[in-house]
Amino acid sequence: MVYPGALKKLVDMFCRFPGVGPKTAQRLAFFLLGCPREEVVAIARAMVEAKDRLSFCPVCGSLAEDECPYCSDAGRDHHLLCIVQEPRDVLILERSGQYKGLYHVLHGALSPLDGIGPEELKLEQLVNRIRDTGIEEVIIATNPNVEGDATAGYLAGLLKPLAVMVSRIAFGLPVGGDIEYADDLTLSRALEGRREM
Amino acid sequence: MVYPGALKKLVDMFCRFPGVGPKTAQRLAFFLLGCPREEVVAIARAMVEAKDRLSFCPVCGSLAEDECPYCSDAGRDHHLLCIVQEPRDVLILERSGQYKGLYHVLHGALSPLDGIGPEELKLEQLVNRIRDTGIEEVIIATNPNVEGDATAGYLAGLLKPLAVMVSRIAFGLPVGGDIEYADDLTLSRALEGRREM
Repeated sequence: MVYPGALKKLVDMFCRFPGVGPKTAQRLAFFLLGCPREEVVAIARAMVEAKDRLSFCPVCGSLAEDECPYCSDAGRDHHLLCIVQEPRDVLILERSGQYKGLYHVLHGALSPLDGIGPEELKLEQLVNRIRDTGIEEVIIATNPNVEGDATAGYLAGLLKPLAVMVSRIAFGLPVGGDIEYADDLTLSRALEGRREM
Repeated sequence: MVYPGALKKLVDMFCRFPGVGPKTAQRLAFFLLGCPREEVVAIARAMVEAKDRLSFCPVCGSLAEDECPYCSDAGRDHHLLCIVQEPRDVLILERSGQYKGLYHVLHGALSPLDGIGPEELKLEQLVNRIRDTGIEEVIIATNPNVEGDATAGYLAGLLKPLAVMVSRIAFGLPVGGDIEYADDLTLSRALEGRREM
């Protein structure tokens, strides 16, 4: 397409975002061009500000504005640790309001095909943290897919010698769902994980 | 969700983009936070630059970087005018390489429910342009939906007294498509528009 130069640059930029193809990028670019200049500047500023003000906690890897809202909170259970793949997973677990322990964000999952091994996830640092800070229980909340399963299995083996209790969050039917639409794997995991009532 | 302030602001900004809901906005925001600072700044700068360097041609409403690439091109047919709804439609028609006339961008379509009437689309300005600049043929290329149809019908009535030829681009089966998947309306329009061969 014969884009003017400045538009092409903008569309190419938007194409780098995850899940944004050339058509969506063009849509977003035209939306911006139709906005008043102040609004475009405000969006641009919010992006740079967020980048400048937010960082990842050097201890747990969560998103932190000044100090880490989890590590620095004395009201949380500092003997309980939940391991997740991404910083956004922390926010999702927080939303449930059920978990009051600390977090450890891997920033990824084991994926040999993508060249992500234990070193890339800094698992040694995780082992040191668990050993040195009196963690008694570890909950693994990696994703229910191939990489997440592999990572959970690897972590379980790694953490066993540390004499901490290690569990993984449950698999089963999503609440509000319908058995009719459950896939076979989810259903067999739900059967496996049945609980007496 | 308990977002840090700067993240919440960014997510809210992304939510204003068309087709971007809270989940996608969060995904985009986390992608940015994972980028190096220079890249975030480059994206922010590209947005403001595009806004500053691009404008809409005061005559035809197309996207223009300095002067309008269509109105200022003496090599184009200045007696032929194609009316489209949005600036991006111009780029899509240009991509086909089939059209060599001028454009007129309405920046919308008639939609009484949204309060968009003939005044909002500046149709009087369009009539003046056609009358004053020697346009001989008008091709209406509004979208094939309710608003686009209404706009095309209204335009046809408006332009008839000007003694110009008015046509609308054809409806029918998309090339490369499969009759099996064509909807009833498209199929009946395709039959209506059949051509001897």
